[in-house]
Amino acid sequence: MKQTKILLPETEMPTQWYNVAADLNNPPAPPLGPDGKVMDPSAMSAIFADNIIEQEVSTQRWIDIPEAVREIYQQWRPTPMFRAHRLEEALGTPAKIYYKYEGISPAGSHKLNSAIPQAYYNKMAGITRLTTETGAGQWGSSLSLAGQMFGIDVRVYMVKVSFQQKPFRRSMMQTWGGEVLASPTDLTETGRKILAQDPDNQGSLGIAISEAVEEAASREDTKYSLGSVLNHVLLHQTIIGLEAKKQFAMVGDSPDMIFAPCGGGSNFGGVAFPFFADAAAGGKQARLVAVEPTSCPSLTKGHYAYDFGDTEGHTPMTLQYTLGHDFMPPGIHAGGLRYHGASSLVSQMYHEKLIEAVAVPQVATFDAGVQFARAEGIIPAPESNHAIRACIDEALRCKESGEQKTLFFNLSGHGHFDMVSYDKYLNKELEDYDYPQSEIDAALERLPKTAL
Amino acid sequence: MKQTKILLPETEMPTQWYNVAADLNNPPAPPLGPDGKVMDPSAMSAIFADNIIEQEVSTQRWIDIPEAVREIYQQWRPTPMFRAHRLEEALGTPAKIYYKYEGISPAGSHKLNSAIPQAYYNKMAGITRLTTETGAGQWGSSLSLAGQMFGIDVRVYMVKVSFQQKPFRRSMMQTWGGEVLASPTDLTETGRKILAQDPDNQGSLGIAISEAVEEAASREDTKYSLGSVLNHVLLHQTIIGLEAKKQFAMVGDSPDMIFAPCGGGSNFGGVAFPFFADAAAGGKQARLVAVEPTSCPSLTKGHYAYDFGDTEGHTPMTLQYTLGHDFMPPGIHAGGLRYHGASSLVSQMYHEKLIEAVAVPQVATFDAGVQFARAEGIIPAPESNHAIRACIDEALRCKESGEQKTLFFNLSGHGHFDMVSYDKYLNKELEDYDYPQSEIDAALERLPKTAL
Repeated sequence: MKQTKILLPETEMPTQWYNVAADLNNPPAPPLGPDGKVMDPSAMSAIFADNIIEQEVSTQRWIDIPEAVREIYQQWRPTPMFRAHRLEEALGTPAKIYYKYEGISPAGSHKLNSAIPQAYYNKMAGITRLTTETGAGQWGSSLSLAGQMFGIDVRVYMVKVSFQQKPFRRSMMQTWGGEVLASPTDLTETGRKILAQDPDNQGSLGIAISEAVEEAASREDTKYSLGSVLNHVLLHQTIIGLEAKKQFAMVGDSPDMIFAPCGGGSNFGGVAFPFFADAAAGGKQARLVAVEPTSCPSLTKGHYAYDFGDTEGHTPMTLQYTLGHDFMPPGIHAGGLRYHGASSLVSQMYHEKLIEAVAVPQVATFDAGVQFARAEGIIPAPESNHAIRACIDEALRCKESGEQKTLFFNLSGHGHFDMVSYDKYLNKELEDYDYPQSEIDAALERLPKTAL
Repeated sequence: MKQTKILLPETEMPTQWYNVAADLNNPPAPPLGPDGKVMDPSAMSAIFADNIIEQEVSTQRWIDIPEAVREIYQQWRPTPMFRAHRLEEALGTPAKIYYKYEGISPAGSHKLNSAIPQAYYNKMAGITRLTTETGAGQWGSSLSLAGQMFGIDVRVYMVKVSFQQKPFRRSMMQTWGGEVLASPTDLTETGRKILAQDPDNQGSLGIAISEAVEEAASREDTKYSLGSVLNHVLLHQTIIGLEAKKQFAMVGDSPDMIFAPCGGGSNFGGVAFPFFADAAAGGKQARLVAVEPTSCPSLTKGHYAYDFGDTEGHTPMTLQYTLGHDFMPPGIHAGGLRYHGASSLVSQMYHEKLIEAVAVPQVATFDAGVQFARAEGIIPAPESNHAIRACIDEALRCKESGEQKTLFFNLSGHGHFDMVSYDKYLNKELEDYDYPQSEIDAALERLPKTAL
């Protein structure tokens, strides 16, 4: 009987996260304030708790996972790794394909890995309320559950069009006790200003971030929480890659290439960074491949420059690959990858050629997702389909060349709340979209001038 | 750090199913044909493969699980058992609460436990097509995936109103390669007859069964597959309870009371029968509690009589607790429990007072489900909420009495495709419905006369 599932014993669950900042050739580029000068970490304390800020700027290689966090992690962690025997057979490839499955978390994706410690640290800092934004709802639902578990109230500013058209993740957040508002609201200055100009405004992630940040900055008991991009979020996600390394050791194998979807970067960083640690320590250098949509090609086609994290320009500026903070993402179905920029850490590693990136078109990602679902059973999230596409492409190259490479991808979540997009795919209603180079070039003109 | 998850090693996964028919005091009551006479098993061969019929009538206590089935089972089995520490704390009960989680199967519920072997046995018998019916889509999606894995075409007759109003499980079936038709169709005599009389007919489970059976009976290469009620389906589900017994042994505990939702009976039988085996062998007698909705109270209020399995009266008659085969289930959200009757094995055990039953109202089941989701993270299927309600009620009784009972329930599936019902609950739009005694009494008149 072939072994498909590789389970790490609970006693082997990592007790520390890995901080890649300790192993970079150059120190991480610091965030800049609105005046274009290097921001003092304490300037972030209006919206983040001090213990979170401390983690954000830490260069310590290993950081302890608090016991209270591990106790909750263990409800679904260590997550299983699978050898995709049936997919290999369907492809007829000599390559070995492994995947790690983060969709078994109660919230259905890897996002809960950071929501739990963020709720914990805020609780320790005496915070009783958290605000955040959400688009499709992956992050908002994770933080709602995490808040519930630590007795912290969570208010989620949900992009109005998603609030109205995607009610299921909204119900999920509410089931876990989260308060969900359709953004723009009349509760913040940002929201009121926008509604005064345009009462029918359907909202955007940029507006929702601005509202959540504004509220957090205005209340003593409230902080803001972000689900990707920042260093501490990527740190929390490294538990994925750390577990995977142990699981590879259990079967006496190790990956030659690792694929993960890349939007803000927490998914990619979470699975790839711990393998970079091996290379940094002189060990095997697996090729680390960030996979993004051709419709949002920040790494593969964007500018490496200081830019804002949000559309409105209310956040600090970070050095990143960006399509311009006023980038309007096309309506692709991988909501988690519809972001103009990328994590500063991921961007720096890409700039220094420590990692690779590839862009794949939408329809091909669903081709891959359906092929995977029919072979392996699990229906993947549209974001995950990007990694599957790139992995299958490599497996097919191995079929041509006869190479027996070991390929590994992160199946970051299930697609149970994304069946509308599978339905469109099956009805041949999905389209590809290449974000035009002219738009990318034009965005360069609109990057914040203070940082140049 | 408190242990919440109890994982059975893969090497400990059961290699045999348990057949409760071997341990009953009286032989199972045989099915009757349309003439009211005991049916010869061979009469079923028009719609079931011979190896399935053999299992259906077997009284052998232990039946080997084929290696090809175990190989697929191991993708998600053994499923985890959890000690519900946080729920216990929220309730303030001295009772210990455990639950087994079947929702981690790729199809999201226990249904896949029987879909896989049914596809396997049909494959072994040379069958290349299977027909089945589905309401909300739990069973249809499981069989679509199982068929895909064994290279068997699956055609699902889906109740038209669900086909139109619940597109997500339909997309799931299609993603796995299942062919999904809105029933009534114009492909069967049953369907054409109904559409001729009523072109706008919205379908029912009874009609869908009739169409699926009619097609299977008319083609050599095609058989019919059912997701509950029958003996072989309950047999396949016993892997749940068999694993649970080993998991209890791992933590040195054993349940005093076991709760499972009961519609057709495969969920309840799957978790409860293996514990009945202990009692039959002179060991501990855990109380086995089948939990049903007050809107479909077949065990608690129905007649113990021979009745059909479908509305149209095309199936054999079995001895069961029934509300009458023409029972029109109220529109409650636990679609899997909207059935007029019950498994013959479960009915016989209830009649002989070997198991218990309780009926709970809809709103209270969602109260319990939301309380559970906030404490434990997982959002349960509406069917599972019935077991959770009954278990919480007992835990609260223990709080009153101070008893430290060990309680156990089967969390048969997740609620990711049922968020509409959570939304209605949160908006206080859900209602309770007690099926009236007068209707139940009246149904007695309409039971098939040939069997009386």
